[in-house]
Amino acid sequence: MNKYLKNNEWNIVEEGFDPKNHKASESIFSLGNGHMGQRANFEERYTGKSLQGNYVAGIYYPDKTRVGWWKNGYPEYFAKVLNSPNWIGIDVQINHDYLDLAKCKTENFRRVLNMKEGYLQRSFVAVMANGNKVKVEVIRFLNMAQPETGAIKYSITPLNFNGEISFTPFIDGDVKNEDANYNEKFWNILETETIDFEGYLLSQTKKLDFSVGFGMKCQVEINGEPFTEAPTHIKGPKYVGNIIKLNAKEGDSVVLYKYGAVLSSLNHPASELLKLTKQKLVETAKTGFETLFEAHKNKWSEIWSHSDIQIQGDIEAQQGIRFNIFHLNQTYTGEDERLNIGPKGFTGEKYGGSTYWDTEAYCIPFFISTAPSKVTRNLLIYRYKHLQKAIENAQKLGFTNGAALYPMVTMNGEECHNEWEITFEEIHRNGAIAFAIFNYIRHTGDDNYLAEYGLEVLIGISRFWSQRVNYSEAKKQYVMLGVTGPNEYENNVNNNWYTSTIAKWCMEYTLQCIESIKKQNFTKYSEIVTKTKFNEATEPKKWKDICDKFYFPYDSDQKIFLQQEGYLDKEQVLTSQLDPAQRPINQHWSWDHILRSCFIKQADVLQGIYLFEENYDLETIKRHFDFYESRTVHESSLSPCVHSILAARIGDMPKAYKLYLRTSRLDIDDYNHEVHEGLHITSMAGTWMSIVEGFGGKRVLHGKLHLNPLIPEKWDEYSFKILFKGVDILVTVNKQQVNLTAKNHPATINIYGNDIDLKPDKTENIALRTKIES
Amino acid sequence: MNKYLKNNEWNIVEEGFDPKNHKASESIFSLGNGHMGQRANFEERYTGKSLQGNYVAGIYYPDKTRVGWWKNGYPEYFAKVLNSPNWIGIDVQINHDYLDLAKCKTENFRRVLNMKEGYLQRSFVAVMANGNKVKVEVIRFLNMAQPETGAIKYSITPLNFNGEISFTPFIDGDVKNEDANYNEKFWNILETETIDFEGYLLSQTKKLDFSVGFGMKCQVEINGEPFTEAPTHIKGPKYVGNIIKLNAKEGDSVVLYKYGAVLSSLNHPASELLKLTKQKLVETAKTGFETLFEAHKNKWSEIWSHSDIQIQGDIEAQQGIRFNIFHLNQTYTGEDERLNIGPKGFTGEKYGGSTYWDTEAYCIPFFISTAPSKVTRNLLIYRYKHLQKAIENAQKLGFTNGAALYPMVTMNGEECHNEWEITFEEIHRNGAIAFAIFNYIRHTGDDNYLAEYGLEVLIGISRFWSQRVNYSEAKKQYVMLGVTGPNEYENNVNNNWYTSTIAKWCMEYTLQCIESIKKQNFTKYSEIVTKTKFNEATEPKKWKDICDKFYFPYDSDQKIFLQQEGYLDKEQVLTSQLDPAQRPINQHWSWDHILRSCFIKQADVLQGIYLFEENYDLETIKRHFDFYESRTVHESSLSPCVHSILAARIGDMPKAYKLYLRTSRLDIDDYNHEVHEGLHITSMAGTWMSIVEGFGGKRVLHGKLHLNPLIPEKWDEYSFKILFKGVDILVTVNKQQVNLTAKNHPATINIYGNDIDLKPDKTENIALRTKIES
Repeated sequence: MNKYLKNNEWNIVEEGFDPKNHKASESIFSLGNGHMGQRANFEERYTGKSLQGNYVAGIYYPDKTRVGWWKNGYPEYFAKVLNSPNWIGIDVQINHDYLDLAKCKTENFRRVLNMKEGYLQRSFVAVMANGNKVKVEVIRFLNMAQPETGAIKYSITPLNFNGEISFTPFIDGDVKNEDANYNEKFWNILETETIDFEGYLLSQTKKLDFSVGFGMKCQVEINGEPFTEAPTHIKGPKYVGNIIKLNAKEGDSVVLYKYGAVLSSLNHPASELLKLTKQKLVETAKTGFETLFEAHKNKWSEIWSHSDIQIQGDIEAQQGIRFNIFHLNQTYTGEDERLNIGPKGFTGEKYGGSTYWDTEAYCIPFFISTAPSKVTRNLLIYRYKHLQKAIENAQKLGFTNGAALYPMVTMNGEECHNEWEITFEEIHRNGAIAFAIFNYIRHTGDDNYLAEYGLEVLIGISRFWSQRVNYSEAKKQYVMLGVTGPNEYENNVNNNWYTSTIAKWCMEYTLQCIESIKKQNFTKYSEIVTKTKFNEATEPKKWKDICDKFYFPYDSDQKIFLQQEGYLDKEQVLTSQLDPAQRPINQHWSWDHILRSCFIKQADVLQGIYLFEENYDLETIKRHFDFYESRTVHESSLSPCVHSILAARIGDMPKAYKLYLRTSRLDIDDYNHEVHEGLHITSMAGTWMSIVEGFGGKRVLHGKLHLNPLIPEKWDEYSFKILFKGVDILVTVNKQQVNLTAKNHPATINIYGNDIDLKPDKTENIALRTKIES
Repeated sequence: MNKYLKNNEWNIVEEGFDPKNHKASESIFSLGNGHMGQRANFEERYTGKSLQGNYVAGIYYPDKTRVGWWKNGYPEYFAKVLNSPNWIGIDVQINHDYLDLAKCKTENFRRVLNMKEGYLQRSFVAVMANGNKVKVEVIRFLNMAQPETGAIKYSITPLNFNGEISFTPFIDGDVKNEDANYNEKFWNILETETIDFEGYLLSQTKKLDFSVGFGMKCQVEINGEPFTEAPTHIKGPKYVGNIIKLNAKEGDSVVLYKYGAVLSSLNHPASELLKLTKQKLVETAKTGFETLFEAHKNKWSEIWSHSDIQIQGDIEAQQGIRFNIFHLNQTYTGEDERLNIGPKGFTGEKYGGSTYWDTEAYCIPFFISTAPSKVTRNLLIYRYKHLQKAIENAQKLGFTNGAALYPMVTMNGEECHNEWEITFEEIHRNGAIAFAIFNYIRHTGDDNYLAEYGLEVLIGISRFWSQRVNYSEAKKQYVMLGVTGPNEYENNVNNNWYTSTIAKWCMEYTLQCIESIKKQNFTKYSEIVTKTKFNEATEPKKWKDICDKFYFPYDSDQKIFLQQEGYLDKEQVLTSQLDPAQRPINQHWSWDHILRSCFIKQADVLQGIYLFEENYDLETIKRHFDFYESRTVHESSLSPCVHSILAARIGDMPKAYKLYLRTSRLDIDDYNHEVHEGLHITSMAGTWMSIVEGFGGKRVLHGKLHLNPLIPEKWDEYSFKILFKGVDILVTVNKQQVNLTAKNHPATINIYGNDIDLKPDKTENIALRTKIES
């Protein structure tokens, strides 16, 4: 834990510069606009510890794998998000000395991430070695309204001298990934060009031929007047820059505007990238900083109008939840179905920026309720387009007949992870992808999605499950052997309850969807049958048989679904008995020690109960919560939110609140001393879930929105919005009552078990309950 | 399979040179003398495909690990056998053209590994590009009588010309390991020196500071007369050589003798290595080639006098078994308790030349019966000296109180393997190390070993088992969770029958040893109690309790001990139902597919039954053999021999013979197309076991040697020797009878269940049985 930032409702604020926090701040203050993102690196030279990071969405690199012991079936490469040419750089010299916060004294340093309006602001007074004092203020944003551009306003005022100030705005293509497996560089720089106040760089990945054009265009003003004296050009094989020198007097306001454009071959012909980059910059510079900034802010205002959560009486919680919502929206905007959400988004390299099940299990529940339905739809279509690769992936593992196994980690649909117990065995990801289809449809009412895209995916996945189980002659039931569940502190177990549960659900849901499409749209049904070579005679029969005879481990004494077969053979110790000095166990115990223990990284039985809660009565949920929560060490950032939601469900609000806090400020307060590597973007969605589904009790059952709001003791009031079937519902909960408003449209909502009809824009008040019955 | 070598009783013979077999031959024709070894690389330049390999016993390198996903507890380095400076090199030029078998035509090429006398011989006629024809004959041996030396006799005769012949004998220190993880070189060359007909090179490993001095000294003769014209010196930073030019006439016999010396800092002060290397070479050269060769051959004669197996009527089997015995003796001579036996010995790099459980489980049963007892004793002391490191290794994994876990792979007692399911879980190796102590004592009668060394090891290992199990409240028994057995096609299983069986045996044996030493030598007993801090009150009680309540998976319907809990939940398919095109499955199936299948790499239940056979009646053995053999794919070279022994035990001689054949010529006939990487040294011992323990039915029970000989149908006669309690027993089995002779001493042997007293050197004849009852 490292608590160095100020509490503030709408901003993240760092006051005073401490180099030891800088890499953490680079992550926390990161910017992104869906198309690109970057760590909060300084524009000017900084020779202290830093992780330079610029990322362009969808541009990745197939790095050579580093595997100790090769296993058959491993992919040949490990794809990683590419650290890209740095276009934000502006070297600054004051009377020939580099401005470098690692070397000069700073006063009144203040760094602000303005989450409401989506920009990064930094101000400080620097005292140079020669005694020159300058006041610096920098504003930077990545344009949400025009995602291929960004802008920087860099202002300097000499405070105690007249002298030369020089700016060297540049683009540097000589970058590398810190996590490159063999220390190789991944970019070729094909072209560089420098003209007055402008620079261009065309880069191409050494494999896969992604091209990205980078451009910069600058304007300089002294006291509001343009400065146009021709700069000196610098042009290296991987670098373009301009040296702009000017003389300034004490008190002068010197401002450099740097506009950046980043255009990739995902969106434009590679051959025209530089030309288009130039055009884009001409437009951008012409529009000017303030107008661009205004449009950007308006876009953020629109985002917040759907997704904001307000909390009264708990400023830390308020800041935490907005921080999470802000970064999720910076990472993914839903414009492009080729993109997805990496565990660290645009804020670091670790985990390769690839797609995990996190998207379906965590991010979709967030976006589905806070953003227009096309955002989630695009995330689903991303997987739909990878169906063929998922089928090929399953083939590699010996499955046949169109069975699809989606990859554990992917950039383009191919598996790119190699750890057998995860890559081959953590197959529950397939379940999350199926569930997301169901979840999308029940939230949006977009039934057409099923016939158009969803069913093909469901059939592929159900086929996988039907082949992945086998009939045990010993048990006379179907078993699923050799699985790793979401609880990665168990590997290669048999009959993981969660995986088997979601597999069974998936086959049943698929059968139901097949029946319903057959009835409603026989033409489409026939098309799908043909396309997937679906065998109507044998496949449904086989799936039904499996579902009827699916084995689930259960302890009848304690009436507990067992995480896996044999779980109770382990020594049963509770986390309360664990020596705190041994935690986190993943930093103190050897891997086999962790595996042998009963401790759970992330409770997968509870994850299953969370997904299918309507199937279990309150007593059952409570019994399982008590059993598993007491054994869970929450050493996955994805873990506490589900427990928090269930704690609220069983009425244990203090516990729910405690678990919520753990997720909400995980990065701001750097609980695990790792925020310097990047933010936990995907788990941020869990924080939102803790409030809306936990405290707010939001569920969707039988096509209807249900709410069961409670309020944490510490809070005076909180409110959230849910976009449900196209209608924005505002929910405000205070100590006395729940206020519900449907925006522009009527809506029917079930609250505390009773349906209530909302008229457009008319708020209904319901008395708050302090306990949820049954 | 690649059968290109001639059948011959005592020799391995290659006729005709085919470059595509050269790397395989380099392995097969390897030389070693315990102190050093080398692949059968050509002395003269060879630009075709080759794996240059020279190895010095005990000299290894801690290479940086290559791990995809680090797990807590992994060792920091991966030790590998070091490819060392090449001292055998002799560049040959004929009228300025390099002799290079990749470039010239060869006639009458013949390469012979003379196993009886332990040398490598090569002869051929080379036709150079310019038409010059030379006859070449080379003899090379690594001196068994003086292990730090080797000698080469390189003879050339011009067949159709008069002209210049030049020899460049050299030592090349610029070598690298093909399996270096990051393509780094591991040697520093500290000194090079060249004088007339001599060269010296002092090398030091970049880490760990092992130093090795290499020296060469040459003599040249033309038609038996010394040639002494001063050569030209070559000396590079990593290379020393002499260019010796002479004019020869058609029919002249030109001979270069090259003596090599290799002295390591394991045996001499590093500072004196070059000096001592020179001294050693002076002596060696003075002794001369023929005398050295004679002493070397005598040493081999002595080795064969204990260890030879003769087979009449099956030349392939005869050649196969001698090949195996020969290479085992080249690899380990038992002179030095710091050395051990790598899976590939001195014949290749793969598996790092490190120590595995192979030594205890396979090599010791061979050496214990074919070599003086000190050989095995030194192998045991090797582990004794590593006890403290084994205790530290266990501590890293969370064990306490002197529990010892020996490493899976080691050079110096430290673990140097990183694959969690093996490194942390394949703990049965601890059992093999304990069993080897028991096995040594019952064969040699060296009871003192226990008090002196053995018991400390047994206590450390038993402590490990007692902590590694846990009491299952669900089963009310002790379970051992998260284990990988010898069958590595199952990972992280619960209650592996073999591991639990050997663990229980180990604790019981340790308790029995403690009691016996307490009774026989109370002083020593007290010393051990103090040294190991053995708690007499609690530890034996705990171990007994565990042994009393140890859980073993068992299927009562089929009356089968189950390889692990839940094995019968797998789809039960037999190897006979496997599509041959899918075999070996480890080359055709993904890892998870292998893990999920019921197929067995190496049957560990049978391994356990083999070790503790006296506990099971014939019916039980037969039942288990039938069950497991039909599911075993034998994709470990360590697998077939145990099955062969048990097949003989249950009287299925055709099966026993078939399984024997698979091991015996595994390398000669290159069954798995991998012999170019090196030989399967440790599994060679299994071939010996198949004959002596399988066909010969050799067992030691209650301190007595038992035999139950049978004869394979194809064989007319076979004989083997067993060194038992210091007495050489010769056993000859033909179609009618078994002849037994004890050399020099009397002996009592149990044959077919009856004791027979052998008088010294008087052969007893017993009628052969064709079936073993009960």
